[in-house]
Amino acid sequence: MSFWKQFRKRLFPSTKDRQFRRDIARLTGSYPVNIDLYKLATLHSSVGKISKQGNRVSNERLEFLGDAILSMVIAEFLFKKYPDKNEGFLTEIRSRIVKRDTLNRLAAKIGVPELVEIQDKNHRKRKNSIYGNALEAIIGAVYLDLGYPFCKTFILDKIVRNNLNLKKIIHTDTNYKSKVIEWAQKESRDITFQTVDDTDLTGNKEFEIHLLIDDQQVSMGKGTSKKRAEQDAAFKACQQLKLL
Amino acid sequence: MSFWKQFRKRLFPSTKDRQFRRDIARLTGSYPVNIDLYKLATLHSSVGKISKQGNRVSNERLEFLGDAILSMVIAEFLFKKYPDKNEGFLTEIRSRIVKRDTLNRLAAKIGVPELVEIQDKNHRKRKNSIYGNALEAIIGAVYLDLGYPFCKTFILDKIVRNNLNLKKIIHTDTNYKSKVIEWAQKESRDITFQTVDDTDLTGNKEFEIHLLIDDQQVSMGKGTSKKRAEQDAAFKACQQLKLL
Repeated sequence: MSFWKQFRKRLFPSTKDRQFRRDIARLTGSYPVNIDLYKLATLHSSVGKISKQGNRVSNERLEFLGDAILSMVIAEFLFKKYPDKNEGFLTEIRSRIVKRDTLNRLAAKIGVPELVEIQDKNHRKRKNSIYGNALEAIIGAVYLDLGYPFCKTFILDKIVRNNLNLKKIIHTDTNYKSKVIEWAQKESRDITFQTVDDTDLTGNKEFEIHLLIDDQQVSMGKGTSKKRAEQDAAFKACQQLKLL
Repeated sequence: MSFWKQFRKRLFPSTKDRQFRRDIARLTGSYPVNIDLYKLATLHSSVGKISKQGNRVSNERLEFLGDAILSMVIAEFLFKKYPDKNEGFLTEIRSRIVKRDTLNRLAAKIGVPELVEIQDKNHRKRKNSIYGNALEAIIGAVYLDLGYPFCKTFILDKIVRNNLNLKKIIHTDTNYKSKVIEWAQKESRDITFQTVDDTDLTGNKEFEIHLLIDDQQVSMGKGTSKKRAEQDAAFKACQQLKLL
């Protein structure tokens, strides 16, 4: 679009655009500067056209960006909120926050579904993570449009503090060991926890446990107790097996 | 440490500390404000003491934070550098940049190994990703110490632009399909590429391919050609099987 066309469009927006601007402002807390970014962020690939380069125009690139931003903001938030917890805990809690389930619920709560352009309602039912993905794309748009500090505030205020029950997320004390064992039984696979190392160099015990499925190492866990090391190994295996 | 002790320490640093400040400045491009962050970032868990809370003090928490920051900065860099590429490409190139191999080489190149405190040289040989991890921890320290804009510049200037051969990384055209097949043969597993969907709703072909190992779906790929969808599925399987 030429500069003048864009300029005119920004000076005299259509009724639909004015409504969209208001919707975005209600969602993010600020009127958009570049409305096209948000239009792209709410464009599902089922309605996107093919670009000159042969790609389908959709929110998937913005989703890639937004996903990275969300991960980082949550990482910093948890890092500062829990100064005494180790990186295993931080990784685990973050993965619970940014997983599809949580994001989809969040997206529905803050009104993302009403904004998303999509082909038909059947499509909506079939693929549930559309709105979680759109939320990530919107985060990407906010970052590009209004910068990092605003985007961070948007994520922390609108998403984390107001709509996330952090205590509940943390106290959902998943027993990863039993989860992996359950899976192995269902799939009739052999599962072994192998204690490889319990070094005691500096007077502090540290356990290293390898998790084997069908005699193949899948993950490795560490901890100051055998139980913790097992949980760590099982957690990593769950991640790999996509059981989370 | 009390405020006055810290104050005195900052006014009259030890010779060792002054040298360390210079080393950090050479690495990051700025003298540190809070030197303790960088000390923590270069502290491998093999020499870390146990804190009051029962955790081993080491750079692992900072590594968690730095990893997220690096992922995001690289995501934005690639997003802007390749406006015509889809998210599959961006994800793939980013994973090539942030993988252990690349980070370890980068860390060695910019002089991270000289800074890391570690127990003994055997330990060094056994675990090669120590320096890649330390580099991530240093990124975390730079972020906390000097803020996001400086940290972004540090990553882009010192790491990406000067020390990364992006063209080579991109043109290492890994054939993921053959990589998975090779793995399956070695491990004597059954592997199947199943074309599930080639919808043509809007006049544009789109293929959906499921990759099965021992009749179990491991990943799903999409693309505008069958070959691309297969590569996509194989790439995701490689990620899950940790073959990258």
